[in-house]
Order: sequence, then C-alpha cells, then structure tokens
Amino acid sequence: MPGAQSLAQQLAAKQREISVAEFFERNRQILGFDNPLRAVLTTVKEAVDNALDACEEARVLPEILVEISKEGPDRLKVAVGDNGPGIVKKQIPNVFARLLYGSRFHANRQSRGQQGIGISAAVLYAALTTARPTRITSKVPEEEAAHVVELLIDTQKNAPRVLSDELELWDRPQGTRVELVLKARYTRGRQSPFDYLKNTAIVNPHARIVLLEPDGTRITWERATTEVPPVPKEVPPHPYGLELGELGSRLKASSRATLGETLSKEFAGVTPRALRDIFARGHFSGKEAPDSLHSEDLERLLAVLHEVPLLPPSAESLSPIGPLLIKRGLRNVLGEIRPEFFAPPVSRPPKVRGGNPFVVEIGLVYGGGLPADQPMQLLRFANRVPLLFQQGACAITTAVGNLDWRRYGLDQKGGSGLPIGPCLLLVHLASTKVPFTSEAKEAVAEDPEIDKELTLSLQVVARHLRTHLSRRSRRDMAGEKFLIIQRILPQLAEKASRLAGKPVPDLTAVITKIMDVVAFEATAVAAANAGESALALEVTNYTPRPRVLELFLEMPLEAAASLHAEPAPDGTDAELGRAWWTLEKLPPSGRVKLLLRFPKAQEVEPGDLDWFVAGVDEAHLLGAEPLPGDWEVRLPRAIVEAAEGSGAEAAMSEGEPEVDYDGAEAHASLDEE
Amino acid sequence: MPGAQSLAQQLAAKQREISVAEFFERNRQILGFDNPLRAVLTTVKEAVDNALDACEEARVLPEILVEISKEGPDRLKVAVGDNGPGIVKKQIPNVFARLLYGSRFHANRQSRGQQGIGISAAVLYAALTTARPTRITSKVPEEEAAHVVELLIDTQKNAPRVLSDELELWDRPQGTRVELVLKARYTRGRQSPFDYLKNTAIVNPHARIVLLEPDGTRITWERATTEVPPVPKEVPPHPYGLELGELGSRLKASSRATLGETLSKEFAGVTPRALRDIFARGHFSGKEAPDSLHSEDLERLLAVLHEVPLLPPSAESLSPIGPLLIKRGLRNVLGEIRPEFFAPPVSRPPKVRGGNPFVVEIGLVYGGGLPADQPMQLLRFANRVPLLFQQGACAITTAVGNLDWRRYGLDQKGGSGLPIGPCLLLVHLASTKVPFTSEAKEAVAEDPEIDKELTLSLQVVARHLRTHLSRRSRRDMAGEKFLIIQRILPQLAEKASRLAGKPVPDLTAVITKIMDVVAFEATAVAAANAGESALALEVTNYTPRPRVLELFLEMPLEAAASLHAEPAPDGTDAELGRAWWTLEKLPPSGRVKLLLRFPKAQEVEPGDLDWFVAGVDEAHLLGAEPLPGDWEVRLPRAIVEAAEGSGAEAAMSEGEPEVDYDGAEAHASLDEE
Repeated sequence: MPGAQSLAQQLAAKQREISVAEFFERNRQILGFDNPLRAVLTTVKEAVDNALDACEEARVLPEILVEISKEGPDRLKVAVGDNGPGIVKKQIPNVFARLLYGSRFHANRQSRGQQGIGISAAVLYAALTTARPTRITSKVPEEEAAHVVELLIDTQKNAPRVLSDELELWDRPQGTRVELVLKARYTRGRQSPFDYLKNTAIVNPHARIVLLEPDGTRITWERATTEVPPVPKEVPPHPYGLELGELGSRLKASSRATLGETLSKEFAGVTPRALRDIFARGHFSGKEAPDSLHSEDLERLLAVLHEVPLLPPSAESLSPIGPLLIKRGLRNVLGEIRPEFFAPPVSRPPKVRGGNPFVVEIGLVYGGGLPADQPMQLLRFANRVPLLFQQGACAITTAVGNLDWRRYGLDQKGGSGLPIGPCLLLVHLASTKVPFTSEAKEAVAEDPEIDKELTLSLQVVARHLRTHLSRRSRRDMAGEKFLIIQRILPQLAEKASRLAGKPVPDLTAVITKIMDVVAFEATAVAAANAGESALALEVTNYTPRPRVLELFLEMPLEAAASLHAEPAPDGTDAELGRAWWTLEKLPPSGRVKLLLRFPKAQEVEPGDLDWFVAGVDEAHLLGAEPLPGDWEVRLPRAIVEAAEGSGAEAAMSEGEPEVDYDGAEAHASLDEE
Repeated sequence: MPGAQSLAQQLAAKQREISVAEFFERNRQILGFDNPLRAVLTTVKEAVDNALDACEEARVLPEILVEISKEGPDRLKVAVGDNGPGIVKKQIPNVFARLLYGSRFHANRQSRGQQGIGISAAVLYAALTTARPTRITSKVPEEEAAHVVELLIDTQKNAPRVLSDELELWDRPQGTRVELVLKARYTRGRQSPFDYLKNTAIVNPHARIVLLEPDGTRITWERATTEVPPVPKEVPPHPYGLELGELGSRLKASSRATLGETLSKEFAGVTPRALRDIFARGHFSGKEAPDSLHSEDLERLLAVLHEVPLLPPSAESLSPIGPLLIKRGLRNVLGEIRPEFFAPPVSRPPKVRGGNPFVVEIGLVYGGGLPADQPMQLLRFANRVPLLFQQGACAITTAVGNLDWRRYGLDQKGGSGLPIGPCLLLVHLASTKVPFTSEAKEAVAEDPEIDKELTLSLQVVARHLRTHLSRRSRRDMAGEKFLIIQRILPQLAEKASRLAGKPVPDLTAVITKIMDVVAFEATAVAAANAGESALALEVTNYTPRPRVLELFLEMPLEAAASLHAEPAPDGTDAELGRAWWTLEKLPPSGRVKLLLRFPKAQEVEPGDLDWFVAGVDEAHLLGAEPLPGDWEVRLPRAIVEAAEGSGAEAAMSEGEPEVDYDGAEAHASLDEE
C-alpha cells in the first residue's frame, strides 16, 4: 500500500500549531463579531465592561463616555473613555493586542471580564475589516502625561505590533480611552449599544454613562447611587463540585508542608472540625506532603470532601446587586410605567458549582401598563453585564420557561416557554466563574446546580406574584362590595326617601353593620424631614363589634432596619424584615393611624408593605391578610400566644352567618343577642 | 492619590498570559463538556469525526468501532477505533494533547474537524475528571508494529505530557484507536452517542459503524454505498466577501512577483478577462509588487474585486451529500415508516461568504406515519456531522422558522417557528468554513449569505410540498369519483337488474362516458435484470373520444441520465431531468403501457416521477398534470408546436359541458353530434 504509506507522513507534514488569534480571526462569530450591527455592540460592550471593572477595582465612581461616529460607508469610529486607574505603559500592548491575556482569568472573584479575550478581539476585528490600527490613550495618576499607543495584532504570533507610542497632555488625572475604526453599522433599538448601555445602567447604578450617537444625539444615564459596590475579594476554591483532576493539580501546586495545612488554607469552608472529620473518614494523618497523594488517595479524599459538612461558600468574592438596587434598576427601566406590583426581589445565599460560588438574584414587576398579551419581558444579566443575544440558548431562559407559570396565575401555552402577561422579570447570575456557552458571553450554559438555584428563586418570586394576584382578586371583590355599600346605598336611600316624601335616614350604623370589615389603607404622606419618606396606615373598624388587633408588617429587609414608626412597634425582626403591633381596642366605626418613616433612599412605597392580622377572620379583612401559619415559629413566644388566643376568637367569629346584601337585619339581630 | 498611584502598578503585576488549555479547562462547557451525559457524546463525536476525516483523506471505506463500558460509578471508558491511515509516532502527542493544533485549520476545504481542538479537549476533560491518561494506539501501514502512547496535557503549557510509549503488535494493517476514561453517564435516546451515530450514518452512507453499549448491546450501521466520497480539494479563497484586512495580509504574504500574478494564482474565480477589468477600473498596472499596496490602494482593489464579475466558486473544495444519498439517508432514518411523499432533494450550486464557498442541501419527507400533530422533525448537519444540541440557537432553525409554512400547506402558529405536521426535514450545510456559534460546533451562527441560501432552498422544497399537497387533494377528489363510478355503479346496476328480473347490462361504455378522464397509473414492476428496477406507466383513455397525448416526464437528475424506456422517448433533457413521448392515438377505453428501467442503485420509485400532459384539459386528467406554461421554452421546437396545437384542442374541449354524476346523457348526446 504505497499510497497509504506516504499518507500518514503527508498528513504529519501538514500538522501545525494554530495561533489563538488566527483561530478567532477565522471564527470571529464566536466572539460576537458576526456582522456589522453586532460588531459595534460587541466592541462597546467589551470596552465598557473593562472600564467598569477597572473603576471598581480602583473604587472610583465610573464616568464612562461612549462616542460613536461615522467614518465612511459601513464604517464607524468607536471610542470609549473612562476615569479608571489607567494602564501602565508596558502593559498597554498586551492588554489590547494579545488574546488570552489578562489579570482577571486567574483571580477567583466576580468580574465582568474573565477571559482576557474581549477587547483584543475588537482590535483584531477592526484591523481585519478596515486595516486601521487601534489608538489607546492611558494616564496613570503618578505620571504627568498620558501615553498614546497605536497598535495592531500580529495574528500568526498572537502578539502586539506597536506602530507608534507618544506622550500627550491630557486634561484629566487618570483614565483610559480606546478608539477603533471598524466595519459596523449603527441603529438604536434592540441589541444596540443604546440598549446595552441602558441595561448596564440598571445593574450598575453607581456609574454615570454618556453615549454620543453618530447623529450627534447625546444620552446620559445619571448615577442613581454614589456608593461604589465593594470590590469582590479573591477567595480560594470551595471543595464542593471540585473535579478530581483539579484537586490533584491544586495539591501538586501547593507550597504548604502538609495536606492538613493545604486543605485548610488553600480551600474555602474547611474548618478545623471538618478537617478532623476528613482525616478520620478518609484515613489520612494530615501530615502527608500535599503532592504525595496517589490516584486512589486522591479519589478517597475527594469523596470525603464531598461528604463532610463544610462552611458554605463566602459571598465575599461576589458582588450581588441587592434587592434595593434591583428594585431601583427596574423602576429606572420602566420609566413612566408605574407597575401595580413589585415582587420583593429575591437574593438567596451563595451556592457552589465546580468550586465557584454563585448567586442568583431575581426581580419581578407586574401590571401597570406592561403589555398583557405578550410574552413576559426577560432581562438577563451575568456579573452585572446585560445579556442581549442568544436568549433562546440561555439556561436562564430555560429555567424561566420550565416553570409552570399557570400555577402562579399567568398564561403559558402548554405550561412551558415564556409565560404571557404584563410582566418584567430581571434575572442576575453572579459568580466567580459564569459558565457561558461561548466566548461572546451572551448565554449561560446548562448546569444542574445553577438550574436548581434559578428554579428555587423563580418559585419564590412566582409565589409572591400568585399571592398578589389572588389578593388582588379578593380585594377587587371586597372593594366592589365596599363601593356598593358606601356609595350606592346612600343614593338609593335618598331617592327612596324623596319618592316617599320622608327625611333621609342616617345610614352610618347600618352601613357599618352591613360592611362588617376592618379596613386597612396604606398611603404615602408628606414627610416631616427632607431625608425621609413617610407612609400612613389607616385602620378603620367597620364591624359592629369592638376589635383588638394584632397587626404584623412584612417589608423589604433594608426598610426594616431603618424603620421609624409611631406608635413604636411592640417588636421587630430585622432578619426577616418584620414588625408587629397590638393596637388599642377599636370600637365600631373607630379609626387608628400608624405613621411609618423610612430614609428617602430606601424608596419604600405602600405596595412594598404586606400587612397581616391575627384575630380577625379573613372574611372581615379588607387591605390586610390573616397571619399565615408559618409565622408563628419565628415570632417571640408572647406574640405567638396572643395570636393563638385571637386565633380561637377568629374560629368563633367564623361561626357567624355570612353577610350578604340582604342579610343586614339577620346580622343586626344576631348582634343584639 | 497614592492609593490609585500604586493600583495601576498592582494591576499590571497581575496581568499574565492564559494558556489556551487553561482557558478551556475552566470553560469546558464551551467545548461541550457541560455534564456527564453530554461529555460522553462530545468525546465520541470528536473521535468519530477525526476517524471519518482520516479515512476520507486516505480514500478508505471507514470501519468505525465505538466501545463504551462502565469503569465505576459515574465513570465510563470510551474507545474509538478506525481503519484510517494512522498517525506517525512523532505527531501522536501533539494531535491528542495540544489544543489548537491540527492539519485542517489552514486547509481551505470541507472537513469535519476544522479547529484542532476537539479530541485534545476530550483528553483534557478525561484527566480533569478522573486523573487518568488517554491511551492511543496507532499503526501506519509501512511499520510492523503499532505505537501505544499514554499521555496527559500539561494545562499551563498547553503541551503534551507523555507517560509511556511502547510498541505493540496489532492485528490490522493500519488505523488509530483512542481510549479515554472520563466522568460520564450513558443513556440511549435523544442527544446520546447512539443518536449521534445513527445520524452520522445517514449522511455518511459509505461508513460502517459499530457501537458497543455498556450493557453489551451491539448495534451496527452497515454501509449503504461502497463509493468513497471524493476528497475535497484545497482551493484558494474567493474574493467575494473577503475583508480588507484579509486581502492585505494575503497580498503581503504572497511570494509572487506581481499583483496580477497574485490575484490570478492565489485567489479563486479571477479569470484573465476579470483581471483586465480589475486593473482598468481600479487604475492598477498589474505589475505592482503585491506587498507594495497602501491602505487606499487596498480599499480600491477590494471595492473593484467585489464589483467585477468573477467565476463562481468551485465546488471542488466541498463534499455535498447529493440528492440520491440524501434520499437514501432519509429512508434509512425512517426505517419502517414509508412516507407518502419524498420531495426532490435540493442541492443548489455553491455560494461564497467571507471567501469561503458553501452549499446548502435539503431533503423533506411528508406523511406516512410521521406524527401529524407535532412540530416538524428537523435534522441539522454541518460538513456531514449531525448537530444535536442548541437547536434553538442555530441559524438553520431560524431560517426554517422564518418561512411562512402556512403558504405551503402546513400549520404554523402565528406564521413562525417550526411548523406542525407529519414532516421530517434534513438540512445540510457544507463549507470550507462553517461559522459555528462556539467551539462545541453545535449551532450555526447567523449570517446573511447563509440565511439567504437557506431560505431559497427551503422555498424550493416547500413549493414541492405545496404542489404535492394540492395534487393530493385534487387526486383525492378525482379518486373518489373514480371509485364511485367504477365500483359502485356496476353493483347498483346488478341489484336493479335483479330486482327488475332483467339481465345486467354492459356498463363499460357508460362508465367511460361518465368518467371522462385519461388515467395515468405508475407502479413498480418486476425487473428483467438483477441490477435494475422497473416502473410501468399505464395510460387508459376513459373518455369517449380518441386521444393523441403528448406525455412529459420529470424525474431526479441521476435517474434521467440512466433511463431506459420502452417505447423510447421522443426526446430527453438530461440537464433538467426530463423526457417526453407522443403516444399513439388512444381510442376510448384504449390502454397503452410505458416501461421504464433504472439502475437499482438509483432507487427510483413511482412517487419520484412527475407526469405532465399537453392536449388534455386538467378536468380530464387523473394521475398526471397539465403541462406547466414554463416548460415550453425548454422544449425542442417540434414539441412546443405539437403542444400548442393540442393546446388549441384543449381550449376547445374546455368548451365541453362539465361532467357531473348525472350528466352522462347530455355528454353522450354531445359526442354524437
């Protein structure tokens, strides 16, 4: 077989290394440079992500300026400037013109850029499509002038090619500006730089972002807070979800003397107690040299590490948005739309996958002008970066679609896919390592741990929605009754009296008897202090009996911590965001008022507060709910006993005949017993 | 600002290069190693793709053996062996344990592997999850023994680490076998190795594939052809769709003396005439040194290259499946299901994007036991590799969903998304460079050129479907009439005669008068020669007049080229797959028979043939269609004239009164005029 004989040799001669820059030049669609429309978005995205990361590391309030201008047919100049710490001259070429180079890949903490690819890919794309170099201006505060570098990438070597390097005076203390000319097209709309920056502002309320569009339009997203989010800390990997090979190479690379020291210092969550457990169950002495473990030892160690209870992963490496800013961000994106319901944002404790902690955060908004006949709007974010493409390929979308939203009061064709309804859902996944489906970082890959956490969080927020919707329908019914009795009955009486030629009778007592509810109405009121906002709760006893009410309030956690109430509550539980009062005995037609004050920044609204009452049957409540059974375990004993006592009363009052519109007499006679 | 002063320096100290192996170890989901179920599929896929590529290069009929066995809880051993040309010893470590290394990345021709990542990624994943090395056995035919190499990847260096290297006798002349132990789970079903191999067999009918499952089940996909597909040739890039930067670097890298020589030798499609055009329009002499062009020259050259008509891209670098094998493949996957309709597979001429030719091929099957109430089954393929994941993120799915299938007779909710109906659609994209959305190669990225070509091809196949569905409904109606007249009328007559005590009259003439159709019925018949299959067409004149029929046949292109017919056709057009006959004058109730013979390998069935008739009005045809107007231009003049003549007759016969069930008498009297 002489033909085949030479073939293996022939093939061998063709084998060669592929530079990562060559690879991505040929496969630029993987990096998000498929077409001119997407190219400008990806370029802006990579530059702004870097700018925000740099500002955060420097603990500077970000000032981002994005300028996009026309440079010819099918060509745009894109410039992104920031006030970050700057880049030292020596590093500029590598940072901008070498793929797989960076500071954040090896750091085990949340950041926007993790791959060391993004901005270099934009430089590569610019040169590929316009043959124009990228111009970088950067100034570090300790130097007088800025460095201005023009560069390209040598694709075959994946290395920078610097064309010029000059000093220039710059009118700012520090910062970086990158300017590229690329084949691109600009439109405003879905999946545009405008859309990306708008969504970036939602989850980065500490940043001020300015966009200059090619037609000269200038859009500014002002910052909504002046607090810089804390810099996520680098943490060692957590053993949960660690693979055998990873464990092995970490032990091999350790410079510690013993296995015990390595486990407790170079892994998270391993307490002294856990360490003793690990050694006992795995038959280790703990004195072994960390690089001495053989295959079977390693397997045993890994099995034990996955069995033994460890401390949960620390959240220090993460930078979640937090419920308050999620809400503020959503309000921001809604603009003029005032939703009827803001579900309390969900932000659960961190979990681990493959050694990396992650957090899921969810916000949901319902009604108030959102389109009712269209699929829920889904805003996806990962590490504070909006994900605008590949919605269908994203694990977040899958998790949302897999929930049976019909059980929570929304329409959903066949019980899967995005539900239909006036809903906006924000989902943020923050992790030291987000598993993206590709380097374009636009969709999260399927992962059982993340999926589980997404599902649990979605269930929590969906339950809130269901509660709201069922309360609303009950409120609607009760409200209708209220309306009929309070407004129409007097009119009827007046007409009837006029016809009969008799004086109009005083109906107040009758109305009270017929209504038979205790009404709770929360409203925003003028605050006494400038820095505060105030809410009032009016409680009116429209029942024919005096009432002693146990009143319970559930509110956002931050709000609970800073609540000032008159009268002062009998107790609070800051951990659960709760407060409670025993109200004075309220006579029939009696009214009592609670005044609540919060720092203005909290933006607490009547809709954020949930009111619960013990001691009154559900049928006699308007604007509040009966105390749920699962509260008891978390309340101080005294309150539990009081609630149980009034629970007995409630059970009795359930024995009362149902009131309907013509039941007033029967009721009155019962009352007279 | 002393804090910030040091920050840029601090950040600089952390900047470092990231090895591509490190990158993919951390981002293994990008390569398709998300979870244990998918890991086994991806491993099998990468190994089998390599095996098929190697066999194709060696022009060997592939024999692939995939063995999967259990190695412990959550662990599988996967071994894939082939009879390819083998790998020379020196190259084994690089091929299997260095990412971005290979022979096919730089070759401008269709192949399954293009990235030089796949199998090394499997080796990386195996080591990461089980710390076990990969074992490669490879024998080239010129050596006596096989080399057996055990290796790992040094992740930080992205370089092979060889643990052992031995010689071993092997019972085969040549081939390669790779054996890995990895964290994985096996199930048969959707997105499993079984599913992947089944679909691979569809589009690689020249391969014999054997799968040994962990429970010992052995599945064999026998080859359906012994023809090895031609090896795609390397071709220079085509200037259409080339980017400025690519043009520049290709000219810079050229070793030719002049621009003219470079353009005509290192680019495809540039004829001498085109070259003259390019020089004239772009104001070039053609004698310029290719690396002497400056920015503006380059831009002008590129603009001119995109304007001037060039030869279309050659298909030599591609390996399309072809209509015949698409059909055979579909029949294979359908197994027992016999569809009611096979649309003629579409395989259009190649187009170019970004300098790379590509071809779209489509097959569609309808009815016959496919589920009618579910979305169309979509089988996606790229370069003869089945795409099993990320259907929703794939440009193929988008193009299918964007077609309004309601216009072609299928249900489709809201006119977009996969249509509902008993349909199976096979789409194959073949290109020297398929733009995948990620390195896992599971979805095609959006691209305007590909999308356009997909849409056009889908329209062609959808029009065939529409024609079939409307013919079927007409045939159904006519068939009903046929049934009533031919079967029920004689029964009625018999009963009536019996009741009346009279002899049963001969109804043949009456039936003929009532039916008033010329019926065409094609059936498979026993062939005289073993290597042939035969079809017969029976034409019966059930009209009360003698008929001269111009009969036209349209058939698959390959079939037309090898057709033997008795009587011989008056003419054929192999280019369009057509043949035609003028039939002898057929008296009322007269019948004539055509016998068609094809090579058995063509697998021509009655449903593959479309019959058209000139000279008879549509209302009088059963089993054939009137000749479409657009045929005339392609027919020899004599036939056109004949058709026009009989067209006049047809116009006359249209003046005949419509026949309905009780119109026989009226008709008969007309005939007697």
